[in-house]
Amino acid sequence: MTGQELFENIKRKKTFLCVGLDTDIKKIPSHLFCGVKGWTAFEKTVKYIKEHYPDQFIIADAKRGDIGNTSAMYAHTFFKEADVDALTIAPYMGEDSVTPFLEYAGKWVILLALTSNKGSHDFQLTEDMQGEKLFESVLRKSQAWADDEQMMYVVGATQGRMFERIRQIVPHHFLLVPGVGAQGGSLEEVCRYGMNEKCGLIVNSSRAIIYADNTTDFAIRSGEAAHSVQSEMEKYLSQKGII
Amino acid sequence: MTGQELFENIKRKKTFLCVGLDTDIKKIPSHLFCGVKGWTAFEKTVKYIKEHYPDQFIIADAKRGDIGNTSAMYAHTFFKEADVDALTIAPYMGEDSVTPFLEYAGKWVILLALTSNKGSHDFQLTEDMQGEKLFESVLRKSQAWADDEQMMYVVGATQGRMFERIRQIVPHHFLLVPGVGAQGGSLEEVCRYGMNEKCGLIVNSSRAIIYADNTTDFAIRSGEAAHSVQSEMEKYLSQKGII
Repeated sequence: MTGQELFENIKRKKTFLCVGLDTDIKKIPSHLFCGVKGWTAFEKTVKYIKEHYPDQFIIADAKRGDIGNTSAMYAHTFFKEADVDALTIAPYMGEDSVTPFLEYAGKWVILLALTSNKGSHDFQLTEDMQGEKLFESVLRKSQAWADDEQMMYVVGATQGRMFERIRQIVPHHFLLVPGVGAQGGSLEEVCRYGMNEKCGLIVNSSRAIIYADNTTDFAIRSGEAAHSVQSEMEKYLSQKGII
Repeated sequence: MTGQELFENIKRKKTFLCVGLDTDIKKIPSHLFCGVKGWTAFEKTVKYIKEHYPDQFIIADAKRGDIGNTSAMYAHTFFKEADVDALTIAPYMGEDSVTPFLEYAGKWVILLALTSNKGSHDFQLTEDMQGEKLFESVLRKSQAWADDEQMMYVVGATQGRMFERIRQIVPHHFLLVPGVGAQGGSLEEVCRYGMNEKCGLIVNSSRAIIYADNTTDFAIRSGEAAHSVQSEMEKYLSQKGII
């Protein structure tokens, strides 16, 4: 899927919500954690989504990143075998750990920049001699590896005002934004500081959607939770003049 | 396996060689890259090693690291299902992405500090305001998360003189050292600057061992290649007075 196709989908659906199918060890049967069963469940889920909702943009939030030949094998597994649209990648090992993922037309690398967890403060905010934070250095340097048609960035919603600075470094890229909802990030703030003229945002919500209810009504309640977020997103898209 | 048991194994076997079972996309059948088949092959390999060589220290070089609940599931999968001794972890997401892996007695986290690939220069060597490099900050901060009985570090052999500085920060920890051989690192240099009184080194070699030969003699040739490294290691262990 190209960036333009993704943008067209956002305008048509009036939403840029990413529903994170984030399984919780306390909430699903433990046999699903076994590697083979976990991978099989993952592949079945991807296949089901592609069959029933062919225009969905599917992200494997696998946070890979390894020496070149291993990254090449991960890329093959996720982009060819599982055939997802995008894969999250950890930047710690640098350029040659990321570039093998960029050899698949229409597939996206989503590089971790500023994550939404508490530990993001341990290293990502460290400033170098020039006052540049590590996550800013990741945003800046990685633009030499691929353009905004192959690369997106993970930027947590928990640090809303950071989006001003981030949009100075990557004005045109899509940003995958976790941390809205349960983790305390504000959708309104993310949109105010982070939305660009082609939306440029994919905002994730996991537990607030998929665990909206634990009775037999869960599908209805999850749908309602997603729809409620969609309504708010529609408002911000409209305010920005995108729809 | 405790650090002391690992040290006893090193003294008895007179080697601290880690043979990396590093599959190469060009050298093994492509159906093995499929996620399920890959995981099954991994589990079978671990099981075979544990049955036939029960004192082997088995490392899954999977480079994981994610938000807390996902890290907890990876930990369960690798330490309980696959039952390996150690798992490599990427530090980018900080403390709460690493600590879930520390809840398994006798199991080890091997944190990426300074990797052996070219891209290690992109971020790992960046100096902060106080002149501390990112990988040094990883070594320093992570010591508050676990001691040298639960944590090791990946330190590439390609930057031999760095070991002097590294041993100032982590004098007692085991270091997992890739990059000797094919990648150009010197075993002699690694041992001179990196070995401590309990060896403190596990030196990895992958392709030089497992692809020593591509005929039906491969098992013999691989054994010879491993034995040749062992002889050199025995010499350094002896020079250090460990054996």
